[in-house]
Amino acid sequence: MPNVGVLGIGLIGGSIAKSLPNSVIVWDSQENAMQVAQASGIKIATSLDDLVNTVDVLVIAVPFAAFDAVFAGVQAAAARREKPIVVTNVLSVMNPVEVTEPNVLFVAGHPMAGTENSGFAAAKAGLFEGATWVLEKHQAEVESLIAKLGAKGVTMPAGLHNESVARISHLPHVLAAAQLLATPEDDEIFGLAASSFRDSTRVAATKAELTAGMVTNNREQVLRAIEALQGVLEEFAEALEKRDDQEVFDMFERAKLIRDENL
Amino acid sequence: MPNVGVLGIGLIGGSIAKSLPNSVIVWDSQENAMQVAQASGIKIATSLDDLVNTVDVLVIAVPFAAFDAVFAGVQAAAARREKPIVVTNVLSVMNPVEVTEPNVLFVAGHPMAGTENSGFAAAKAGLFEGATWVLEKHQAEVESLIAKLGAKGVTMPAGLHNESVARISHLPHVLAAAQLLATPEDDEIFGLAASSFRDSTRVAATKAELTAGMVTNNREQVLRAIEALQGVLEEFAEALEKRDDQEVFDMFERAKLIRDENL
Repeated sequence: MPNVGVLGIGLIGGSIAKSLPNSVIVWDSQENAMQVAQASGIKIATSLDDLVNTVDVLVIAVPFAAFDAVFAGVQAAAARREKPIVVTNVLSVMNPVEVTEPNVLFVAGHPMAGTENSGFAAAKAGLFEGATWVLEKHQAEVESLIAKLGAKGVTMPAGLHNESVARISHLPHVLAAAQLLATPEDDEIFGLAASSFRDSTRVAATKAELTAGMVTNNREQVLRAIEALQGVLEEFAEALEKRDDQEVFDMFERAKLIRDENL
Repeated sequence: MPNVGVLGIGLIGGSIAKSLPNSVIVWDSQENAMQVAQASGIKIATSLDDLVNTVDVLVIAVPFAAFDAVFAGVQAAAARREKPIVVTNVLSVMNPVEVTEPNVLFVAGHPMAGTENSGFAAAKAGLFEGATWVLEKHQAEVESLIAKLGAKGVTMPAGLHNESVARISHLPHVLAAAQLLATPEDDEIFGLAASSFRDSTRVAATKAELTAGMVTNNREQVLRAIEALQGVLEEFAEALEKRDDQEVFDMFERAKLIRDENL
């Protein structure tokens, strides 16, 4: 019997299901996604209530805009359970979640894996192999699931998590979009784009709902990250304007050292 | 007999030699690089003079800092030739080159290919397959060489080339470095780095001499590119501060459209 429920089978939820087809049962509000999942051998629940009643651990894998309503539905369904259910999510920002149902044990989670694609079709088994998966606190059942998916569980307070992802995920998304918006739309210019431009704008191909969701749900930290970057860009521009080429070299050299040591 | 000379066998020059080992003869001021090249079956000249005397087409594949001195040496050697020699280069900025020797026919060139690695060891056959190779004007012998390397020759005035590469190559290098310099050096933060951060900072692993060289040799255009990007970042920050989430979404949506259509 599957004891892990996955609610929402887009890229992340679908990849959990495809990675552990024998342990997982899923539900999604989109009937056609459910049919595709079922055709690929994944068990499907008959309703959100059925899903919540069937499993011990539930992963809510819906985007920011849907989370509050879905979580309210989960709490209502959990109230009819005899024993508690462990619930986690996969949002890229850990904001406070109001738990009103004693039967719900909630822990925020965030798998640091993904691609610029979305939807069940883009989901794949093994997506989480070797990836870091952040939890706001230890929770045995969720950590066991993370281990089964081949990911590395890390616990971190929500605040530090949000600051970190603003720097290493949300800012790159903003910069990818900003570079495209700042480039004159000219075939000759885009025609020269090689790997540096392709790589540095890759994540701009992500669905705008998802990117806007992460940034607006982590507003203060993203604003700080943008501000810090603007400061460094200002230093680059000043060094170039003053023709201080040694300083330009030194900045690139420091950056290379940081990358070589940390990535 | 080889009729193409390659002066400097780092990543670019070495890749030309490895791609066309039967047509190319090389020279490099570093004796040990020459020995490695010879051991891999590439013909080597005995001196810069020997190289210039042997071939009809010469690719100067040295970095910015070395170019002027090397080009002076090439002009002096070419003065002793009976017939003209075609000379091109592979710098990422097309700045004016003063040709004083009538025997030298110079055309600036820039292959839009490369990696964050450097040196003959990183060079590889086939590096230019499918890549765009910009020339400032048509030149039959150089275009023939480009075609043999599997690259797509494109002619473009130096000014438009420099503006374009500032946007699609030099700015990504500045942003990669700036992101690393703006990130607090904290193991927990870097520990979360997934593909978006790795990709958007990949080119910061380039040797600082090369990156600083491209940026300081294209100073005005890079400053304009930084300024344009700063303007867009300011728009992102303002929309976030005003909680205008529709505008944030619209910016990501426009960027995605530009990328999907142009890359």
